[in-house]
Amino acid sequence: MSVQETAEAIRSMEIRGAGRIARAGVRALCEIAEAHSGDRESLLKDLDDAKEQILSSRPTAISLWNGVQAAMHGVADLPSAESVKERVVENSRAFIGRSERAMGSIGRIGANRIRDGDVVLTHCNSHAALSVIKEAHRQGKRLEVIATESRPWRQGVITVNELAAEGVPVTMIVDSAVRSVMRSVDLVLVGADTITSSGVLINKIGTSQIALIASEARVPFLVCSETYKFSPVTLFGELVEIEERGRAEIIGDADVSENVEVRNPVFDATPPEYIDSMVTEIGMIPPFAAYEVIVKILGPDYIFENKE
Amino acid sequence: MSVQETAEAIRSMEIRGAGRIARAGVRALCEIAEAHSGDRESLLKDLDDAKEQILSSRPTAISLWNGVQAAMHGVADLPSAESVKERVVENSRAFIGRSERAMGSIGRIGANRIRDGDVVLTHCNSHAALSVIKEAHRQGKRLEVIATESRPWRQGVITVNELAAEGVPVTMIVDSAVRSVMRSVDLVLVGADTITSSGVLINKIGTSQIALIASEARVPFLVCSETYKFSPVTLFGELVEIEERGRAEIIGDADVSENVEVRNPVFDATPPEYIDSMVTEIGMIPPFAAYEVIVKILGPDYIFENKE
Amino acid sequence: MSVQETAEAIRSMEIRGAGRIARAGVRALCEIAEAHSGDRESLLKDLDDAKEQILSSRPTAISLWNGVQAAMHGVADLPSAESVKERVVENSRAFIGRSERAMGSIGRIGANRIRDGDVVLTHCNSHAALSVIKEAHRQGKRLEVIATESRPWRQGVITVNELAAEGVPVTMIVDSAVRSVMRSVDLVLVGADTITSSGVLINKIGTSQIALIASEARVPFLVCSETYKFSPVTLFGELVEIEERGRAEIIGDADVSENVEVRNPVFDATPPEYIDSMVTEIGMIPPFAAYEVIVKILGPDYIFENKE
Amino acid sequence: MSVQETAEAIRSMEIRGAGRIARAGVRALCEIAEAHSGDRESLLKDLDDAKEQILSSRPTAISLWNGVQAAMHGVADLPSAESVKERVVENSRAFIGRSERAMGSIGRIGANRIRDGDVVLTHCNSHAALSVIKEAHRQGKRLEVIATESRPWRQGVITVNELAAEGVPVTMIVDSAVRSVMRSVDLVLVGADTITSSGVLINKIGTSQIALIASEARVPFLVCSETYKFSPVTLFGELVEIEERGRAEIIGDADVSENVEVRNPVFDATPPEYIDSMVTEIGMIPPFAAYEVIVKILGPDYIFENKE
Amino acid sequence: MSVQETAEAIRSMEIRGAGRIARAGVRALCEIAEAHSGDRESLLKDLDDAKEQILSSRPTAISLWNGVQAAMHGVADLPSAESVKERVVENSRAFIGRSERAMGSIGRIGANRIRDGDVVLTHCNSHAALSVIKEAHRQGKRLEVIATESRPWRQGVITVNELAAEGVPVTMIVDSAVRSVMRSVDLVLVGADTITSSGVLINKIGTSQIALIASEARVPFLVCSETYKFSPVTLFGELVEIEERGRAEIIGDADVSENVEVRNPVFDATPPEYIDSMVTEIGMIPPFAAYEVIVKILGPDYIFENKE
Amino acid sequence: MSVQETAEAIRSMEIRGAGRIARAGVRALCEIAEAHSGDRESLLKDLDDAKEQILSSRPTAISLWNGVQAAMHGVADLPSAESVKERVVENSRAFIGRSERAMGSIGRIGANRIRDGDVVLTHCNSHAALSVIKEAHRQGKRLEVIATESRPWRQGVITVNELAAEGVPVTMIVDSAVRSVMRSVDLVLVGADTITSSGVLINKIGTSQIALIASEARVPFLVCSETYKFSPVTLFGELVEIEERGRAEIIGDADVSENVEVRNPVFDATPPEYIDSMVTEIGMIPPFAAYEVIVKILGPDYIFENKE
Repeated sequence: MSVQETAEAIRSMEIRGAGRIARAGVRALCEIAEAHSGDRESLLKDLDDAKEQILSSRPTAISLWNGVQAAMHGVADLPSAESVKERVVENSRAFIGRSERAMGSIGRIGANRIRDGDVVLTHCNSHAALSVIKEAHRQGKRLEVIATESRPWRQGVITVNELAAEGVPVTMIVDSAVRSVMRSVDLVLVGADTITSSGVLINKIGTSQIALIASEARVPFLVCSETYKFSPVTLFGELVEIEERGRAEIIGDADVSENVEVRNPVFDATPPEYIDSMVTEIGMIPPFAAYEVIVKILGPDYIFENKE
Repeated sequence: MSVQETAEAIRSMEIRGAGRIARAGVRALCEIAEAHSGDRESLLKDLDDAKEQILSSRPTAISLWNGVQAAMHGVADLPSAESVKERVVENSRAFIGRSERAMGSIGRIGANRIRDGDVVLTHCNSHAALSVIKEAHRQGKRLEVIATESRPWRQGVITVNELAAEGVPVTMIVDSAVRSVMRSVDLVLVGADTITSSGVLINKIGTSQIALIASEARVPFLVCSETYKFSPVTLFGELVEIEERGRAEIIGDADVSENVEVRNPVFDATPPEYIDSMVTEIGMIPPFAAYEVIVKILGPDYIFENKE
Repeated sequence: MSVQETAEAIRSMEIRGAGRIARAGVRALCEIAEAHSGDRESLLKDLDDAKEQILSSRPTAISLWNGVQAAMHGVADLPSAESVKERVVENSRAFIGRSERAMGSIGRIGANRIRDGDVVLTHCNSHAALSVIKEAHRQGKRLEVIATESRPWRQGVITVNELAAEGVPVTMIVDSAVRSVMRSVDLVLVGADTITSSGVLINKIGTSQIALIASEARVPFLVCSETYKFSPVTLFGELVEIEERGRAEIIGDADVSENVEVRNPVFDATPPEYIDSMVTEIGMIPPFAAYEVIVKILGPDYIFENKE
Repeated sequence: MSVQETAEAIRSMEIRGAGRIARAGVRALCEIAEAHSGDRESLLKDLDDAKEQILSSRPTAISLWNGVQAAMHGVADLPSAESVKERVVENSRAFIGRSERAMGSIGRIGANRIRDGDVVLTHCNSHAALSVIKEAHRQGKRLEVIATESRPWRQGVITVNELAAEGVPVTMIVDSAVRSVMRSVDLVLVGADTITSSGVLINKIGTSQIALIASEARVPFLVCSETYKFSPVTLFGELVEIEERGRAEIIGDADVSENVEVRNPVFDATPPEYIDSMVTEIGMIPPFAAYEVIVKILGPDYIFENKE
Repeated sequence: MSVQETAEAIRSMEIRGAGRIARAGVRALCEIAEAHSGDRESLLKDLDDAKEQILSSRPTAISLWNGVQAAMHGVADLPSAESVKERVVENSRAFIGRSERAMGSIGRIGANRIRDGDVVLTHCNSHAALSVIKEAHRQGKRLEVIATESRPWRQGVITVNELAAEGVPVTMIVDSAVRSVMRSVDLVLVGADTITSSGVLINKIGTSQIALIASEARVPFLVCSETYKFSPVTLFGELVEIEERGRAEIIGDADVSENVEVRNPVFDATPPEYIDSMVTEIGMIPPFAAYEVIVKILGPDYIFENKE
Repeated sequence: MSVQETAEAIRSMEIRGAGRIARAGVRALCEIAEAHSGDRESLLKDLDDAKEQILSSRPTAISLWNGVQAAMHGVADLPSAESVKERVVENSRAFIGRSERAMGSIGRIGANRIRDGDVVLTHCNSHAALSVIKEAHRQGKRLEVIATESRPWRQGVITVNELAAEGVPVTMIVDSAVRSVMRSVDLVLVGADTITSSGVLINKIGTSQIALIASEARVPFLVCSETYKFSPVTLFGELVEIEERGRAEIIGDADVSENVEVRNPVFDATPPEYIDSMVTEIGMIPPFAAYEVIVKILGPDYIFENKE
């Protein structure tokens, strides 16, 4: 797929999901490099143009930003077109490989934390969290899952049907019943949309209050996330914008007076002190290691030198 | 209405609402007394039979228990049919009068706590909490209300429409968005189903997690409740049963595998340390005064003597 | 002193201090009663007029309200001028006697809580708190006091000089150094301006943050207060107004641009969960007993009957 | 038994246990009254002498103080020897009756709080707490008990054997393992040595850290106690002395260098915010109701009048 | 300026401020290297002597320590006088450049965290914190600042005048009023004196209680600091000494008895759990990244090898 | 000692203690390398066999795993038998040297945190914690130690005798008395069995409740541990198994009914939020730096590449 086609497919939501988007963008850059026959300057320029085009197809997708960053890492300093091409291809394959293996690693690492007989609570519909649950189930551990409805989109319905199809015993509750069931829960597992350099989790609305409730009852709260969800731009103080969506997702016009305002924030922010551990493809890490993960992403020379 | 008719109307939900049920039961007892022409013994027996019939029409309604208790207070020791009749009538009128005035008192007392410009968050559809909000609005205070959707029954929709009709600016959110908006809230107002002798609030599912979230953010959390919601039987250690209802209220059979369990607890328990004050018709009291309120209900001679 | 003279002396701050104001008001009512020679109706009317005049001399002084209430307690139902006179005189003497003995009782009760070698932290200049400290010192207990400066009025300077004059070892710190010294403190003692029906303490600005700091370090925080500081009107939901005073108390006009706003709130509100005990003339009571104290003040028939 | 014999039996520990001591003291006073044939003055004097003798046999036993206080309640104002005798006898019988029924009431009230399948943790060897557990067991509820060893006296051994004899499944742990097992516990039940007017529990060393651990994990912590364990003298600020005992109870001289100090405090103080409820013979009450219970014990006229 | 002149200027406070001191010390070392014409050994000896002289001019200034350390980094292992000279010059320029750009970077990074309409609270007079506020103001964001008076030196007066001169709306309060206004604050920004390897902030007295108050009310608390304020010596367990200054800064001798002790600690310690993020020139980092920053300062070979 | 002898000595507990076991295992590998005369392939195979044999001698000893890992670090990629031998010998000597110096470093670093006059509480019998205490004592600091009995094995007895022999004033308490004495404690020092990648401390049963109690009272809680106690396998989600031992360690069969179950967990898990700092041979680090320490152990190329 050409860069243009890739950007279009991302923009139109044909390509979806943090991982798939990132890999598509990286693949497009890789193909530019592989197919190029010009000199170093024209290659660098073409790569730069492609990079801009890809990033603008979904400016808020941090995984896309991380993928493109990874593909171009260390390229600017290379002396020849050939060495640039080689590096881009190598970078791209490494990123794509890691990204494809990440979900499996998270599943295996996280499943180690589930003990036979555990009751796991989950929220919304996180691939990473479900990957942990399914892996533990496949390993023959008996476990039960409690899934929240996750209003307004009710992704909890997808979650419970997905788990029931795998044969995992699963119970659905409304979002308000979390504290009511928390004392019978052994572990909370949620996914991540974005993780900031200070260890704050941005995730589906409701996540932060589940974390608070788990913390109150001393129940471990784990976040399952690939490292490409960690946001390097937050290191520079950029705030993660919390998207607010339209009223129709919550209530139909016929049911409610037009004088009633309806607020529909999509995400909320969970402070790191309510997070016991993050399950990533590079291991179980504390939320405060977010800074270190981001430094790894940005490369070893970043600190003190390349930051500005 | 006869005792039988009253009991039937309560059982069939024709008569609804904690206050209305209690007053209907008391009225029925009062009419027995007024109409009676037999001797002391037959009167006491008829009253006792009526009491049993009324209580069994809704065994979990603590307001009915409190009303009947109030109507019969001190009656057993009276010497003559005449004195029994007088006392039952007097007791009944006092209870009915207080009960009818309670909502207004709560509105006026609670409205004093709302300052011009306040943002008030409420949950579910509580008459007492709305009475406070409307009274403050009528007094000309500018205030905004944020109401939760209150899944599964979505009583929040009734609440927002009710407030919009009065001209109160009101915003609706899903139950998961409470922590996300809490920092812009000045006051939380909820109602009560039952209050125990140790000050625990039993109320609509989700109330306890809103209280925890308010407490985390140092936002005052007030409970609006008539004193007949305070449960004397909890003094004897009786647990308040938390009703669990059917799956159909949460999700249709077509949308979810039959292997998925659906839990639907109707109420939850909020510990008193998350409650700043209770707004009752006898004033703003701390939740720990529940014990004292119950002792007043049971009468001054209760302690040390009449308890068993 | 006549009612008019008393009201004037209170208004002009000639009579100051919660206790002195209350006793002066009660004395004026008592003298009206003693000197009266008219019939019941004219006596009641004169008392009522006097009451209004006295209360309006300092509408925010809750001790004055409580004193006047105590003097007039049960008077309205009495049958004759003679019986009214007698009751007012009796009520007044009882109130004045209790009020005069209160400080001594608080000193003795509170001193029991100070152990030999204790370090006590205090804030502002509270007669009741200092009465406890001096009593313990007089009993021969070795104790040290740390007193905050208490900006902007720096009443801490009065406190340290007052204690040094008694021979109590005393150290002064700025208000910002409280957390820095808290781990070496054994007990915090503060006074009260007003106590609400829910157990909230209204006191000199800075009190609530000292309470929070003590609570963080598990240091007992005691409030020393006469019961006439408990506010019956808060039972009806009235908010205690926090007075804000002028900028000149904080900084001179020459030192600061006129574009700088200066906020000078005089009091703040300490939640009851940060208060371990209240030392009153009727004993060591939990802050949540505030409701019960207020009910005692309002009289035994108050609940359920006389409230409106 | 004469007053002298009673005092001696209490002093020599022949009569032991808070309830038995109190009843013995009351019985001795009652017998003085019943047998007396002198006039009012000599009777009052004899009663007073007996009271002093009894109290001095165990000055720290608050139940004895409360019993004697109850027996003599209202006696001083009575006009004749006959009326004094009647009142002492009546008071004594009432106290003894209530005291004997108290343990049963506590068992029944507390058992209501245990649900089928509950795991209950208990500490030391409390009659009241075990009375609740045994009553629930007799009612056919399945429950498991975890008992701490309770060093240094290891009363946990008595507890586990006592429960095993009744057929209750019971597990013993060392005192350090409480937090390790807390997440599988549904309820903590402990007894009381003394309860102060501010709601502080004085009980066997280790109780306060179990309360903290339960609070951290949101597990209900209940105190089982007869009301005669509530200490009126704490209302006047008296500190409850924490007894420290000898080193031999902890370690033998052969095992430890004489340079090692050994501290052996017998009790500790649990703050009321870690206590969910107190199970007493007059019902389930919040710890903050301690003040009200003490006022009941001291009599209705206490407040504002009889205190000094 | 020669090394001697530089050391003297630092000692006499002619050169002030953490950054300026550090740069002056580094410059002096750099000039030694540039001007040197001897062999490797004599150069190293001269640098070492100069280092000692500079460090002893202000032994507690961690920025000076860090600067000197940076200038000499890796120098000991170099083979020739030439290579030593080159490295010292290169190191020095890098440190000076980073240090000069740091304040600007902090301003830009921190300003991203301020949203239009925010109320920011600050304490004392921190260049770094004010740099953030002024940058946000220059970007056209509407914001209001609340500044504490910051007794005893009242640096708050400098802060408010500085901000008013820039046209930023600013309000001054006494230090005791922080909790009273906290619920209307959106963000707290403070500076740093020193940051330890475990993430503890040492800053102007009063900082730790503001952090506690912000944490209680869920208001983000950010520390603005250049990385040269992070203290490598704390890694080896050295305690940061909290300077105590004289009584005259708090009160004049005429105003206070000489028996009154006056304590005047200049700094206090804020635990990392009350700090949401640190704004440094290398980005927004969690306080626990302090260890990582220090390891960067000490160089990549430090761990496991060079520590002793 | 041969590999076989070493493995046997570890298995039979002849060689004990985390450090000694690790050094013995490393020495055995080193000797294999030194003595080997075959080619690269046979050397690698022999090392691998030896590694397996050594690890299986104590599969749960994380120090052994870390030692063996350190000895073999980077070996697989080397081209010749000679280079492999050299590297193994070099690795082994480095590990052994660091390990032997670790205890001294911890003592010196930790001793810096003890101030003259401090009261230190410790639990069980930790070499590292005692090394800190003894070093501070040798430096002439006056300090007092409170040691828990540490049931069931009562290692506290060893601790107090060990300290008394050094002349350190020491007091023993039962495990239940920790909260009772905590307010007079300045510092808590404990050792470590294992530390996970998220900063959780696994240590002697009772440690987690001491940490909670210290945290409640704002007393610093420090963990003293060599870095080879940090567990790399927890990075992959492996749970640290908490060993449960037999009943005989707690109570004799004669003293307890056989129907009584006895639980004897040896360790518990302390969450990092209750840990102020870890004292390691590489410095004072926050518990959240555990991840970074483990990455150092696994080598710089681990992240993103070598993990699977």
